[in-house]
Amino acid sequence: MLLLIILIIIMSSSTSLLQNARIALCQVMVFGTDKVANIKKASDTITKAVLECRDKKLDIAVLPEVWNSPYSTSSFPIYAEPIPKLGQNINLDEKISPSTVMLCKQAKLHSLWLVGGSIPEIDNGKLYNTALVINPEGKIIGKHRKVHLFDIDVPGKMTFKESDSLTAGDEITVVDTPWGGMGIGICYDIRFPEYGMLMRQRGARMLIYPGAFNMVTGPAHWELLQRARAVDNQCYVAACSPARNESSSYIAWGHSSVVSPWGEVISKAGHGDEIIYADLDFNNVETMRQNIPCWTQKRTDIYSLESK
Amino acid sequence: MLLLIILIIIMSSSTSLLQNARIALCQVMVFGTDKVANIKKASDTITKAVLECRDKKLDIAVLPEVWNSPYSTSSFPIYAEPIPKLGQNINLDEKISPSTVMLCKQAKLHSLWLVGGSIPEIDNGKLYNTALVINPEGKIIGKHRKVHLFDIDVPGKMTFKESDSLTAGDEITVVDTPWGGMGIGICYDIRFPEYGMLMRQRGARMLIYPGAFNMVTGPAHWELLQRARAVDNQCYVAACSPARNESSSYIAWGHSSVVSPWGEVISKAGHGDEIIYADLDFNNVETMRQNIPCWTQKRTDIYSLESK
Repeated sequence: MLLLIILIIIMSSSTSLLQNARIALCQVMVFGTDKVANIKKASDTITKAVLECRDKKLDIAVLPEVWNSPYSTSSFPIYAEPIPKLGQNINLDEKISPSTVMLCKQAKLHSLWLVGGSIPEIDNGKLYNTALVINPEGKIIGKHRKVHLFDIDVPGKMTFKESDSLTAGDEITVVDTPWGGMGIGICYDIRFPEYGMLMRQRGARMLIYPGAFNMVTGPAHWELLQRARAVDNQCYVAACSPARNESSSYIAWGHSSVVSPWGEVISKAGHGDEIIYADLDFNNVETMRQNIPCWTQKRTDIYSLESK
Repeated sequence: MLLLIILIIIMSSSTSLLQNARIALCQVMVFGTDKVANIKKASDTITKAVLECRDKKLDIAVLPEVWNSPYSTSSFPIYAEPIPKLGQNINLDEKISPSTVMLCKQAKLHSLWLVGGSIPEIDNGKLYNTALVINPEGKIIGKHRKVHLFDIDVPGKMTFKESDSLTAGDEITVVDTPWGGMGIGICYDIRFPEYGMLMRQRGARMLIYPGAFNMVTGPAHWELLQRARAVDNQCYVAACSPARNESSSYIAWGHSSVVSPWGEVISKAGHGDEIIYADLDFNNVETMRQNIPCWTQKRTDIYSLESK
């Protein structure tokens, strides 16, 4: 009997380890060409998200893809910043890397896990579309360079070629957090089921995609792909877009969303300058994985997905 | 000038090779335990589909998963039939393999590509959940044994364990048709992005999934997974369910659907005994693949999906 009670206590305590995380997606309006204004806007939005969560501490904040620069291949070289390698983020120069410095300060000030959307990065003469993960001590612990560059051509509707100016990253990014692995992809990365599955293979329980789908692919695929990656990988998925700015050359779809592992949209923005919130209950991840155990039923005897 | 005219003729004729295919999904009501009645019902439904297409020839007809038997692990051994290996389908014994004989006769009679849903198959003492593809000459040219067996446990809502009586297949099935590769998966196979991608790797331009999602996973995931597989693989997806029979032990969700490569549901049934039709324009497959060329952008330098 005593053994049974001890067992029940152990089981219930192991379940309670899976605490909720409150997440905020900051659907920031990017102000055209003024980098200083863009950085201030993003910083103010993070502060606002923290303040709006008075009832419960905000744990994770996410910014959108390319929030400090216009989204155009000609802008990326102008707005790019050097970003230190992981573990080297001391003595950041605010004049040279102002976006990165702001993110580290805000994460530390508010004791936040901050997914700093993405910004153009310059390293050794090459440009990348780079997402940072900063921990609550203000330290950069994750750096994802967009792996799949966005080159599409829907004639008469949407043409964009990121590879004109950017270099692709070559790392699958999953960061350890108190809630389990946090996988990071950027925008077009979400179209590649392999990338999502490799994040799950490496322990991801949530997949965060800063992204800026457009007015053609947004209505068709933005929500669908989030829900697909959530159900395929039995993870929470959060995708954060910039607000729609009708006067920019690239018009974002907006509609930042959070999707449960069961594929339900649990929080969703419109297209304006706004913040949405969700409480991620990681017991739902475990429940989904137990109920539909397809990850233990992969036919690794007839196929395999591997990273190199 | 003459050269230009010749070029235009060549280009237009190569485009016209991608002719439309009219497809019918036969959402058949399975009559409980009467196998003879089930076979007659399926046969009559195929005939009805052909007759309803008077304005334009029907090219492809699809039956649902397990249409000749109740969907239960205890029924599978009773309703199972031996099915000849590919190329050996002569002198089929109507008494031993009545479902298979009916499919071959109907395909030949109506000059149809017939995806014979699935039936329980017995081979060498083992049971399989098997989908046949019959060509318009009445010959079995494809045989897919469900690769991922359906073992789920959503406590209090849905528990099913196919592996209690079935053996899984181990082949990725893609059949050549006049419209390009036709990939075949069965139901739970659709939850595995790897399987869909391997069909695309092998030339599939349409993915056909006979399936019987239930009243728990149906509303949550049936349409989502079809749209996901369509957009991930830039293929048409057609999923054919049995009609909902409230008196059976396993109640199917219904809602057979056809989805375009762009992820749009272009035809969709309710849950009753009905047939839906769609015209598949394979130019849309090529257009999607050219506009969003993500299959040429796979990062095979950092990951690979391979069959063994």
